[in-house]
Amino acid sequence: MGELHEACGVFGIVGQPAPQQMTDASSSLAIDTYHALYALQHRGQTSAGIASSGSEGIRYKKGDGLVQEVFDFDSLKKLTGHMAIGHVRYAAQRGMSGVNAQPLAVETLGMQIALAFNGNLTNAEQLRIAIENQGGILQTTGDAEIILYAIVRKLLETRSPEQKTLLENAVLEVMPLLKGAYSLLILARDKIIAARDPHGFRPLCIGRRAASPVGAHGAQDGGFGEIVFASESCALDVVNATFERDVKPGEVIVASPGNLKSLSVQAAKRCSLCAFEFVYFARPDSVIDGQSVEVSRTLAGQCLARSSPVEADVVIGVPDSGISSAVGYAQQSGIPYAMGFVKNRYIGRTFIQETQWLREQSLRIKLNVIASAVRGKRVIMVDDSIVRGTTINRVVSLVREAGATQVHMRVTSPPYMHPCYFGTDIPNRDQLPASRYTVKELADKIGVDSLAFLSIDDLPAVTPDLKITRCDACFTGNYPVPVALEKTGGDFL
Amino acid sequence: MGELHEACGVFGIVGQPAPQQMTDASSSLAIDTYHALYALQHRGQTSAGIASSGSEGIRYKKGDGLVQEVFDFDSLKKLTGHMAIGHVRYAAQRGMSGVNAQPLAVETLGMQIALAFNGNLTNAEQLRIAIENQGGILQTTGDAEIILYAIVRKLLETRSPEQKTLLENAVLEVMPLLKGAYSLLILARDKIIAARDPHGFRPLCIGRRAASPVGAHGAQDGGFGEIVFASESCALDVVNATFERDVKPGEVIVASPGNLKSLSVQAAKRCSLCAFEFVYFARPDSVIDGQSVEVSRTLAGQCLARSSPVEADVVIGVPDSGISSAVGYAQQSGIPYAMGFVKNRYIGRTFIQETQWLREQSLRIKLNVIASAVRGKRVIMVDDSIVRGTTINRVVSLVREAGATQVHMRVTSPPYMHPCYFGTDIPNRDQLPASRYTVKELADKIGVDSLAFLSIDDLPAVTPDLKITRCDACFTGNYPVPVALEKTGGDFL
Amino acid sequence: MGELHEACGVFGIVGQPAPQQMTDASSSLAIDTYHALYALQHRGQTSAGIASSGSEGIRYKKGDGLVQEVFDFDSLKKLTGHMAIGHVRYAAQRGMSGVNAQPLAVETLGMQIALAFNGNLTNAEQLRIAIENQGGILQTTGDAEIILYAIVRKLLETRSPEQKTLLENAVLEVMPLLKGAYSLLILARDKIIAARDPHGFRPLCIGRRAASPVGAHGAQDGGFGEIVFASESCALDVVNATFERDVKPGEVIVASPGNLKSLSVQAAKRCSLCAFEFVYFARPDSVIDGQSVEVSRTLAGQCLARSSPVEADVVIGVPDSGISSAVGYAQQSGIPYAMGFVKNRYIGRTFIQETQWLREQSLRIKLNVIASAVRGKRVIMVDDSIVRGTTINRVVSLVREAGATQVHMRVTSPPYMHPCYFGTDIPNRDQLPASRYTVKELADKIGVDSLAFLSIDDLPAVTPDLKITRCDACFTGNYPVPVALEKTGGDFL
Amino acid sequence: MGELHEACGVFGIVGQPAPQQMTDASSSLAIDTYHALYALQHRGQTSAGIASSGSEGIRYKKGDGLVQEVFDFDSLKKLTGHMAIGHVRYAAQRGMSGVNAQPLAVETLGMQIALAFNGNLTNAEQLRIAIENQGGILQTTGDAEIILYAIVRKLLETRSPEQKTLLENAVLEVMPLLKGAYSLLILARDKIIAARDPHGFRPLCIGRRAASPVGAHGAQDGGFGEIVFASESCALDVVNATFERDVKPGEVIVASPGNLKSLSVQAAKRCSLCAFEFVYFARPDSVIDGQSVEVSRTLAGQCLARSSPVEADVVIGVPDSGISSAVGYAQQSGIPYAMGFVKNRYIGRTFIQETQWLREQSLRIKLNVIASAVRGKRVIMVDDSIVRGTTINRVVSLVREAGATQVHMRVTSPPYMHPCYFGTDIPNRDQLPASRYTVKELADKIGVDSLAFLSIDDLPAVTPDLKITRCDACFTGNYPVPVALEKTGGDFL
Repeated sequence: MGELHEACGVFGIVGQPAPQQMTDASSSLAIDTYHALYALQHRGQTSAGIASSGSEGIRYKKGDGLVQEVFDFDSLKKLTGHMAIGHVRYAAQRGMSGVNAQPLAVETLGMQIALAFNGNLTNAEQLRIAIENQGGILQTTGDAEIILYAIVRKLLETRSPEQKTLLENAVLEVMPLLKGAYSLLILARDKIIAARDPHGFRPLCIGRRAASPVGAHGAQDGGFGEIVFASESCALDVVNATFERDVKPGEVIVASPGNLKSLSVQAAKRCSLCAFEFVYFARPDSVIDGQSVEVSRTLAGQCLARSSPVEADVVIGVPDSGISSAVGYAQQSGIPYAMGFVKNRYIGRTFIQETQWLREQSLRIKLNVIASAVRGKRVIMVDDSIVRGTTINRVVSLVREAGATQVHMRVTSPPYMHPCYFGTDIPNRDQLPASRYTVKELADKIGVDSLAFLSIDDLPAVTPDLKITRCDACFTGNYPVPVALEKTGGDFL
Repeated sequence: MGELHEACGVFGIVGQPAPQQMTDASSSLAIDTYHALYALQHRGQTSAGIASSGSEGIRYKKGDGLVQEVFDFDSLKKLTGHMAIGHVRYAAQRGMSGVNAQPLAVETLGMQIALAFNGNLTNAEQLRIAIENQGGILQTTGDAEIILYAIVRKLLETRSPEQKTLLENAVLEVMPLLKGAYSLLILARDKIIAARDPHGFRPLCIGRRAASPVGAHGAQDGGFGEIVFASESCALDVVNATFERDVKPGEVIVASPGNLKSLSVQAAKRCSLCAFEFVYFARPDSVIDGQSVEVSRTLAGQCLARSSPVEADVVIGVPDSGISSAVGYAQQSGIPYAMGFVKNRYIGRTFIQETQWLREQSLRIKLNVIASAVRGKRVIMVDDSIVRGTTINRVVSLVREAGATQVHMRVTSPPYMHPCYFGTDIPNRDQLPASRYTVKELADKIGVDSLAFLSIDDLPAVTPDLKITRCDACFTGNYPVPVALEKTGGDFL
Repeated sequence: MGELHEACGVFGIVGQPAPQQMTDASSSLAIDTYHALYALQHRGQTSAGIASSGSEGIRYKKGDGLVQEVFDFDSLKKLTGHMAIGHVRYAAQRGMSGVNAQPLAVETLGMQIALAFNGNLTNAEQLRIAIENQGGILQTTGDAEIILYAIVRKLLETRSPEQKTLLENAVLEVMPLLKGAYSLLILARDKIIAARDPHGFRPLCIGRRAASPVGAHGAQDGGFGEIVFASESCALDVVNATFERDVKPGEVIVASPGNLKSLSVQAAKRCSLCAFEFVYFARPDSVIDGQSVEVSRTLAGQCLARSSPVEADVVIGVPDSGISSAVGYAQQSGIPYAMGFVKNRYIGRTFIQETQWLREQSLRIKLNVIASAVRGKRVIMVDDSIVRGTTINRVVSLVREAGATQVHMRVTSPPYMHPCYFGTDIPNRDQLPASRYTVKELADKIGVDSLAFLSIDDLPAVTPDLKITRCDACFTGNYPVPVALEKTGGDFL
Repeated sequence: MGELHEACGVFGIVGQPAPQQMTDASSSLAIDTYHALYALQHRGQTSAGIASSGSEGIRYKKGDGLVQEVFDFDSLKKLTGHMAIGHVRYAAQRGMSGVNAQPLAVETLGMQIALAFNGNLTNAEQLRIAIENQGGILQTTGDAEIILYAIVRKLLETRSPEQKTLLENAVLEVMPLLKGAYSLLILARDKIIAARDPHGFRPLCIGRRAASPVGAHGAQDGGFGEIVFASESCALDVVNATFERDVKPGEVIVASPGNLKSLSVQAAKRCSLCAFEFVYFARPDSVIDGQSVEVSRTLAGQCLARSSPVEADVVIGVPDSGISSAVGYAQQSGIPYAMGFVKNRYIGRTFIQETQWLREQSLRIKLNVIASAVRGKRVIMVDDSIVRGTTINRVVSLVREAGATQVHMRVTSPPYMHPCYFGTDIPNRDQLPASRYTVKELADKIGVDSLAFLSIDDLPAVTPDLKITRCDACFTGNYPVPVALEKTGGDFL
């Protein structure tokens, strides 16, 4: 119910250039990108943008809002070319001018570059100060501009009279300077460079599709096809591409028409893919670093049924990410699963604030209990996490008002006790009740008859197919890279 | 997946007028109506409107689009008063000017009236000709204007020098002239009149809430509270009202501040509540004429498991209305239920048409298969209905592409063989494949290994709590009222 | 400066239908109408609309705002056909829903009709009551709907089993029932009917152009060309048509492709063209009933120079309609003319109200004095009228602040003493200072050293080429048709 | 008629901060700035922006379009503070994203700065390359960002451990590096810095007003009042400020609440105020460096009457800037002046392009001849300039079609023969017909009976009150600073 937010999603596609005699006027890859961003919309709803590259150079459009609010067909038609990248972004507040929307597109040193990334630099502040002290003027508050500055500076440092440094080499050399999480795509005139930080905090995968018949001018490509990059594999399906492999932690890849090359892989000793991708962020039909999200959620439900059983009449899941786990819990326990909630899928603007209504009303508009499923029953309610905990006790109240005689809550992640510095958004970082209360106290505050979390020890079991290790810092406080200390404070509920 | 559309949803609320010394400037009931229309948004996405009534008379705003597209806070603030009605409407094509949006508000004979209704008159054409021949000019193509004309004419016919006819009496006298389906709300300066056609084709219910503390000026109402009308009970929850009872078929009710009065009940011999409300239209958390929608869907799944069993590995449901039935099928059969699809909840504008892409792409953007759930498995896929059948074979293809070894389709309604004339929308009425093919032929065309429908005889069993009889004309052709003959034709798939 | 408002402008064009084998898909006449409405925009800025007619029937679009706010190219492209009418309208307040925008388009009795008119019925209230008592429901507050009702009723009364009454005959028969001012255009499927009230209160003229090469499909029309109707001749120039003649008071004309026919002329004994068309409303490049507006204004200035001379150093005119008269005054008197004011041509939204600033600021934003033209000089300031008088003393203050030593005001119309009921808008009808004060008192209130008006006796001299008589009721109180009595009251300044 | 465009207009205001105990929440200075930008709208219609500064820091909003399109009241309300600057800008093409809109606001080195400027740097390209080679990334294509970079670099160069360089000192030190034209305003947290280039190419003046009663919280300021900067004095009138003096060429001024200080004046040996400000750009009610624009235009007309007399019946002026000169010509020659044209003041979007109509139609929509003024007459037509010459022969055609027997054109500026590099926009620089044809040839091409230009020698006579010397490079080719050579070419007409 909106307590935690992924910060971004990226997408890129490399097609075939138009034959020489034709103008490069197709915008079909921009339209593909538009549809792919739809599939990644759950990773960021604050701003959206697309940059394309073709014979006319790089063109872009971006703005605040959902993908469908930012783009119309006329604007997509202008984004011509045989390569494109796109971005969706979440931010705590909608800014006045969309200044932080990505891709960030610039022209400097005779090059046009557009950059889109998902993640968060932990040394952004030091890099920012260094840039300013060298006379650079940062015009956004985002890390994308900092990364761009670092790359450009590296290009200047390493260029010699004889030879221009290749952009991808500059990216390679810059990566040791960037601390934290980043899965990034850089669009140049003639290629897309993809890079994933050495810890692999954020997902990034590669797909491929046969050159589209209506796409890039029917160009002959010897069967090479078109290369696609995406934060999640669910965006590949939408453009009819098939999954090829994940970008490896620390890997830099260059894709150009008819060409795909891995430059280097400099992974950290221990990788740190965000565990919350499986718990909450990713779409269930995505497969990340080998692990199906849906399978992981179902396993988490089954695991909880084994570790924290309780007598009950029905299992329900809090939409959307609690559903599969509830099904898994039901399967394992033999207690029937039922659809316990309806989530209104038309929700947009509500006017709760303006009318000073009870805050509870706000929840009723988004989420309704199906009374027939819970009335007179002992209910097991499965949800993905308790972060701030501001909503969950109201959900419990709704279930009780609908007639549940008992409510047992099962949470498919361990207690969330430490802030994240790697690209998720926690609106108020000092409000993490799990760090201040016992499970019993939490159960009382939430108003449930029993409460149980997934054990940290069970994390491997619920991601059996995952090929790399996880970041579990939010549960354990063991941060894979040094982070600034956070002042704590604030009240629970 | 959008083959059949409910035509409308209505909502109304009667609060307490402001004390004499205060201006009637609250728009809290308009805001309640806005939120209630959200809950009814699934009943119509083409246009939306709200009319309020207070000391300043009737005010209204309506337009094309979703509730959140039509209204902003400024426009809601102008809809002051202690009574309001609202409407959402579906139409095959978005018109140029929203001329058919409801409520239809007029001022005539010194009265201000606003009317909102859900349904479809089967004698609209005859009434329309009669009105025009009497010099009336119809400015919309909708039935609301025809009903309004009939009421106004009745008012003129029955008024005498001594006494003005009451609006509700005119409504009563007009009802025998109106054939077909209508659940209507009429807002006048000092009351709301609710009426439901004698067959009860469309749902309409009554709720009540304690006078809101921030609502109607803290007026003392002796505990009477505020009266609410809604097409579905799910809209009551949103405004914190509790269900009181359904409006009876043929009933006319007058609600004014502190007063609720049933004028008359003139039901048809056999009632005809639309069976598709349970199959597809209504929200699962609604209860209609005694029957929980969710329970009905679950029962339909269980019923199919008994009547059309098949060996399989997993049961999946096509979102949204197939989900509960799939859960029911799984429970009954013992075959595990799994979440088989992800439906993109951000879908708005797509540009499929413009790019002449394969039509299949359009589906991929809205609906994705969760491959891990079906790969290598014999799949039972539960859906609500086959009306035109234009989408379902593509859904089947997606499931097969994701690796299903067999696909067995189970449909929670009987074959749809006859057009509906009572307020649902069938884009192309001559394309009803179930009327032209055997079940085996249909299975081949759709591409499934087996296909089974709910039996007509099982309809009572899946709505055990329903207090009135159903309309099953779309399955049987037994229309409860005479309807014009429909020319048939067109091809399947 | 906005004290008096013309209520409307109309335009119509009849081209050539597409050859049989072609679809009637051109929207070039809608685009012509759009440009013509630009030229008539000064006659109404509240709403705008266009209706077209072709093989697809009548289509229309209308809305609140300026022509350019209501239409974009996509909406114009949909208005296909070989005939079109358009309308611009002024209203005191922008309504919520543009319900009174014209053309008013309906479909009734198997006909599609769109109507646009300029004027005001003086018996609208009686007609409205009669329509309602016959069961008609009026859905706008405008006279267009009343006229339409009267025509439709006449069609019904006069039709017989053998023969359908022609629309134009119904118009002819309805005209005796309509009292007041109306210049109207009716668009049917196959013709445009133009009518002007028997007094000829509002202008309406006919033009013709050679069939446009890019217009009506290059159809051969034997040189007949395309017929154009317009409130003012300035709209003919814009579409490259040439003036042919004025529609006569009381005349009904039918135009269809290749055909133009005057049905009847039933003029009043004494015509009553609005004198204010020359003083203020019309554009200077228009010629109305034989009289050039520009010439009339120049003559009025010359006339004032003879009748009300004064020693001074410079003559300036208040924009826009005072300019030509100031030039005429200067010519006649030998006193130099100078440009005294700059009027900001970008003015749109101002936020004076919100900031509770001195009202004078509002004027400064719209109008600035050119100090060098008046500093240290005795100034003669020519303006068109004093209606409410709320602005003029602030204009005088600006001129004095800029350094004028004397300000002598000359007004190119007689004192405005009686309200108008024939299609102009006076925001507050009880504030007509000229009816309550002597000229000397007025001069004191306005703050000028001398004040003189054009004499009523001079009206013929300033419109020497006018072919019909004028309405001077606002100066004399001699209304050409009976009007309701107006209660008076209110304060000056 | 739009052949030459001023590139920008700026405005700034320094009020009084709120008393300590109050929040600095007034947006009255932003509203003043909004109104002032209206008055400067003729200097740029492509984008508009406002930045304000107060206790909350700098806030800004900018975007593509007219002032009234970019701002609404809600956005102005957020621009709180006791200081503000604003900008209007012209650009040849409306960009996709308004990236070049000003003020340019950044936060760097712990400072918030917003910059707005009017002009053009002639060494922008060299500065741009230098910035990029130092690792700076320019994100706009405008000179504002280059100036900002230069200032920031100077701040870094001159700061020492003991002392921070003042922003105004950095501005002073940067000015020798900036070549070309610039009148700039820099808004910091606590002051506005105004600077004008040493040649004074573009105007910039200072005004003052008594602290507004509704403005800055009624703060006591000892009668100091509020300081205003504006590109033209016409913007002072709008906010009720009075002209104080012009900013001198080469002067840097710092204004803060209650304080106004001239830091330094480093003027070029010979100043170079743009002569076209008087001919065309500036509003007639402005006074620039001592010279009234209106007086200059009238004198130019008189001068032409003496230098290029011709027998004729009427003098008309092409709106807007030819009007005053025509009046001057008429006065001097004794030939009557008449209003010859009506310019449509509602012109916005036209659809000429889309319909492939004759280009002449486009002109008819904007400009109409008043036939009665020219019919059967020998006409002297006064216009301000011939730059590209693409429109003027169509204007001449309109006048002839309206019945003029002769057309004699008089131009109030010398032949425009050399491109401008100082902040005006010439859409196509190689199309300057005056550089390639004799006056006789030009007259033939334009289609006039005679043609005469103002003599370069008469420039001093038509700006008798001007306190500084003019730039007349566009007439003479004597550029006051070195400029890049321009390739020539292209055809006339």
